[in-house]
Order: sequence, then structure tokens, then C-alpha cells
Amino acid sequence: MGLRDEIIEQPALLRRWLDTQLDAVRQVAAAIRQRQPDYVFLAARGTSDHAGVYAQYLWGARNRLPVAFAAPSLFTRYDAQSVPRLHNALVVGISQSGQSPDVVSVLAEGRRQGAVTLAITNAAHSPLNEAAEFALDVHMGVERATATTKSYTGELLAVATLSAVLRGEAADLEDLRRLPDVVEAALALEPAAAEIAGRQRDLKHCVVLGRGYNYATAREWALKLKELAYVFADPYSAADFQHGPIAMVERGFPVLAVAPRGAVLDDLLALLRRLRDEHEADLLVISDDEAALALGHNSLRLPGGVPEWLTPIVGIVPAQLYCYHLTLAKGYDAETPRHIRKVTLTE
Amino acid sequence: MGLRDEIIEQPALLRRWLDTQLDAVRQVAAAIRQRQPDYVFLAARGTSDHAGVYAQYLWGARNRLPVAFAAPSLFTRYDAQSVPRLHNALVVGISQSGQSPDVVSVLAEGRRQGAVTLAITNAAHSPLNEAAEFALDVHMGVERATATTKSYTGELLAVATLSAVLRGEAADLEDLRRLPDVVEAALALEPAAAEIAGRQRDLKHCVVLGRGYNYATAREWALKLKELAYVFADPYSAADFQHGPIAMVERGFPVLAVAPRGAVLDDLLALLRRLRDEHEADLLVISDDEAALALGHNSLRLPGGVPEWLTPIVGIVPAQLYCYHLTLAKGYDAETPRHIRKVTLTE
Repeated sequence: MGLRDEIIEQPALLRRWLDTQLDAVRQVAAAIRQRQPDYVFLAARGTSDHAGVYAQYLWGARNRLPVAFAAPSLFTRYDAQSVPRLHNALVVGISQSGQSPDVVSVLAEGRRQGAVTLAITNAAHSPLNEAAEFALDVHMGVERATATTKSYTGELLAVATLSAVLRGEAADLEDLRRLPDVVEAALALEPAAAEIAGRQRDLKHCVVLGRGYNYATAREWALKLKELAYVFADPYSAADFQHGPIAMVERGFPVLAVAPRGAVLDDLLALLRRLRDEHEADLLVISDDEAALALGHNSLRLPGGVPEWLTPIVGIVPAQLYCYHLTLAKGYDAETPRHIRKVTLTE
Repeated sequence: MGLRDEIIEQPALLRRWLDTQLDAVRQVAAAIRQRQPDYVFLAARGTSDHAGVYAQYLWGARNRLPVAFAAPSLFTRYDAQSVPRLHNALVVGISQSGQSPDVVSVLAEGRRQGAVTLAITNAAHSPLNEAAEFALDVHMGVERATATTKSYTGELLAVATLSAVLRGEAADLEDLRRLPDVVEAALALEPAAAEIAGRQRDLKHCVVLGRGYNYATAREWALKLKELAYVFADPYSAADFQHGPIAMVERGFPVLAVAPRGAVLDDLLALLRRLRDEHEADLLVISDDEAALALGHNSLRLPGGVPEWLTPIVGIVPAQLYCYHLTLAKGYDAETPRHIRKVTLTE
């Protein structure tokens, strides 16, 4: 088993999770309905932090829950008498390993203050699960590659399913049940992703753009580029990019974008057009939209028919495949990147 | 008046603000004490977003207020029926111009829902101030350079003063009153900053590290490098950097760090030592700590005697000076960077 296998097995694992874990999600949802938290207080690091960004947009737009990101150092490095008040919060920790002490300390403090606490991990018997009142195990099996792929889509699916169960609309659950087939269809992009990666083997820096739900995808795509292919990749929401960083773009500057159909597509299209026509940027676009695909010098066509709120779980898949093949094309080790460990214990 | 003048006039403007605006802060604090919001919901873009990051740490650690960042597209691009519930929030918008429609729409929605609403701007008669129940004007005068400097330190000072008045401890106000003199002392770093910038005129990419309160400083320093000097600068908290991006660091890789004395310094020192000794990174350090300064191949010595919670208002000053001189050393225009406008109206 290696990184590529873990990318390829995602549809089957997502399908199994939906077949077995809905009751666990219903329990969490019942506690949330009963105790009515005002907002979510969320702790996560690295790739799991991007699942948190997805939760920020999804739970904000579809469940009316504002999401505050914990600054874990407040809990471990500053005065313990002055940690934030959390009694009216839903405190969520997301972690592949469930082991990072800083994330565990946020959950423990939330529980001490009487908040509803929820751990989302790929490790049922971890300190994070023990610290929380409720836990959702993403059940993706052992992840051997250092770079996280299947645990990320598993975390996204847990976040999305909790949102759907809280809304209680049957159509959402049907959309979720169709999702693994669409993720499987996205795997067919591997030859195209490999071909583009081969031509781009000299990529050293780029920006990665997304907006709305897929700002999370842009963040995760950029992190994979850094971890695996040592590409200096900077992620931006389309709006923030225009508040300053666009100054860096010159002719031929590589811009990667994930731009599926949905409420924020027009904004992203306008920015991509400006980048191509005014700044002569070099665009790689992942999308299911004809206009977006046509803007890319290179493009990867997503399978269609996915509602916007679920597109991050599909859109990351060709990005993972592209990063894997770019890593090989550059002659690097996709299984064990330099300097980093699978479990990072920050405090 | 140009960018350098606006950097230089910061101490005088901060002093004037403290002499004239405490009553306005006390009014806001009284409303917060009376209506007891559970948490802060904060909207900002670009440089003002970094003042928001400072608020996240400061209000979290010293006022027990969790801070949730608004994803403004939830208010302008997704279903208006499903915006987050904000009635128990303190809704804050920070903006130099007070004009960005997405930030204004967050404040307007908060007010509609009955939340306490606060605008922090450098523009008293702006749409953002009109949308909010309360406003703090940072009174920094017209800012002519496209890159924001004095409005940023003004926003930080408003955030810090509100924190101090909410705590109600006289010692905090005394620390604030001493601050403009320390900022003035930091201006004396200009020759050293110019000299280092001159030697680094070929800088094309780097990471910028900070932690705790000064994660905001790292973010702002990196944005200035992008906007002004077109340097591909990626900011990280010391903890997040170890969850993946450290893989990019190879021999001679430029790392900039802002590392003043305080509760998080030891973590940052351990990381900087690892980067220098194991990865042979090239370090530029801003600090008032001997051990931190000794780690830098280049270093800028901050004036001492500032309590940790106020260090971001001092620490950004040598970073601004360094960015200004790096821009000149590269032969670029510090007043009007390419592609960006002073006021960016994103929706």
C-alpha cells in the first residue's frame, strides 16, 4: 500500500462509511439539537485544518453555525486562567491521528466548561476521542503514506454528513449516497493529471485559487504540493487574492484553480479571465464548467451532477493525483517526504 | 507624503489617538459589558484581516472572547436565508477604507439580527461606519501609499485598547501610554533594515514565521513582501509550519521570523534552531531576545520593555522598513505597486 493506493481506495471507503456510520452522526446531531450551541469552536492542524475550513463554510451556509478557529497556543502557552469561554459552543477537534496535544487540550477545556465536544479522527482509541463526549471515526483504515489523502476526504464526508443530518432533508442524504460513485468517476482523470504533471515537472512556485466551499480544496491542494513536490504553493480565496497578492503575478506565472459550478463560480471566472488576459498567467483549472475549462491552458474535467456543497470531496481527487504524479515526475519520494513525520505532536 | 513618511509618522499618530479616543473605546466597552456577547464574529480583508488575527489571539487570551472569522461570501454569494445566527455575537468589521461591500454586508446582517456591531476604520464617514452601531476611527489621516502601514498599526492599537479597557486594569493603560515611545525607538532600526535589504535584493521567495500574538505580524510582513517587493512570501505559525510545509526547506532557504520575548518564544526558538542546524536555512530574526538574535544570520534588535501582548505594534515597524528598502533595492515603485488599488471592492 502506498500513496496512490490510498487515493484510489477513497470511493470504496467513503461508500462503506455511509453504509455504517449514519447512526453515530444522528447521535451527535441529537445532542446538538438539544443543547443548541451558539457557535462552533474548532481546533485542527495541517490537512485536518482544511476539513475545518470546509466546516466553516458548510456549517455557516447550511446550518447557520458560525465557526471560530481555536488558536491552540491560547490553551497551551498562555495563562490557563484566561482561556476563551466555551460553555455555549460546540467544540470540535479534527485530527487524523487524534494525538496532537494542542488539539486535545482544546477539547478537554471545552468539556470542562460544559460544551458539547466532538472529535473527528481516523483513530478510534486516540487521546482526542477520549477527551471528547462524542466522536466520529472516519474509518479510513491505516494511512501509511506520510501525506494525508483518504483521511482528508473521510473528514470532509463526516463534516458534510453531520450538516445533512442536522438539516434533516432527505434529498441531501440522497446526494451523499451518490457521492462515492462520482469520486470514483473522478479517478478516471489520472492519465490526464499525470500527463499535465509530466509537462509541468519544473514547477517551483504557484498560487492556488478557490472560493466558498472550495477554498478548503485550494488550501489542501497547496499543502500537498508543498509536502510532496516541494513546490512553493500559496493558496488564496479569490477575494483575498485581489487584496494585495495579485501584485506578484507576471507573465507565465503559474495559477492553479479549483472552480466547480456553483454560487461563487462567476467571481472566480472573472478573476481567472483577468489573470489570463491582463497578466498572461499560466492557468491549470479543475472544473465541471465549460467556460472555466476553456480558460485553462491545462484543465481537468470533473464529473458533473454534484451539488455545490459536496464538490470539495470530488474536486480534491484530481488535485491529489496531479500532486502524486508531479512528485514522481520531479524524481521525489511520494511515500516519505523529507523533514516531516506522519504524526506531528505540537503543543 | 509617501510610504516611508507614513511609516515614520506612526508614533506621533498612535500617541494622538491615545490622547483623544479613550472615551470612544469606553462607550464600546460599556455596551459589550452590558450585552455580554458569547463570541466575536469578525469580517476583514487583506491587511485588516491581520489586525483581526491579532484580535483573535488578544481577545481570546486576555478577554476570554473566542473570535470567529466571517467568510464574507456566505453573506453575499450563498442563500441569504441561511446566513449564520449572530444575535449573541459581537460583530466586528475592520477596514482601512470602510468601503468593501462584503465586509459591510456582514455588519449590516449582524445589526439586523440584534448583535452588538463595531466598525474599526480609518474612514469616519464610510459605509462600514454607517452600518455599525459603534465605530472606532483610527484617525491615521489620509493614507496615500497603496500598501497599508499606519492604518494597520492604528487598527492594532484600537484592538489592544478595547482589550485593555474591557479588562479595566490600570497597568494595561500605562503600558499602552508607553507604547508610542517604543514604536519611535523601533524607527531607529531603519539603517540596519536598509542594509540587510540591500544585501538581500535578490530575495524571490521565503517563509515568514511568528507565533501567538505575532502570528499576525508574520502574516502582515508576508503580505507587504508580496505587495511591494513581489516576493513569494508564505506566513506560518510555528506549529502549522511543522505540519507539512517544513518539507520545502533546503539549504540556504530564506526564513524570516518575528520572535519577541514571551510565552511562545521557546517554541519558536526550538524551531529556528532546527531550521538553522538541521536544514541550514538562512534566518532573518526580529526580536528583543539575545538567544533569538544570535540565531539569525541577519537580525534586527527590537527595543525591549514591551509586554508581550503589545509586541505586534512594535514588531511590525522594522518589518515595514525592511520591505520598503527591499522594494527600492529591487528597483520597484513603493508607492503604487502593480495590479492593485488602494481600495479593493470585493463582494
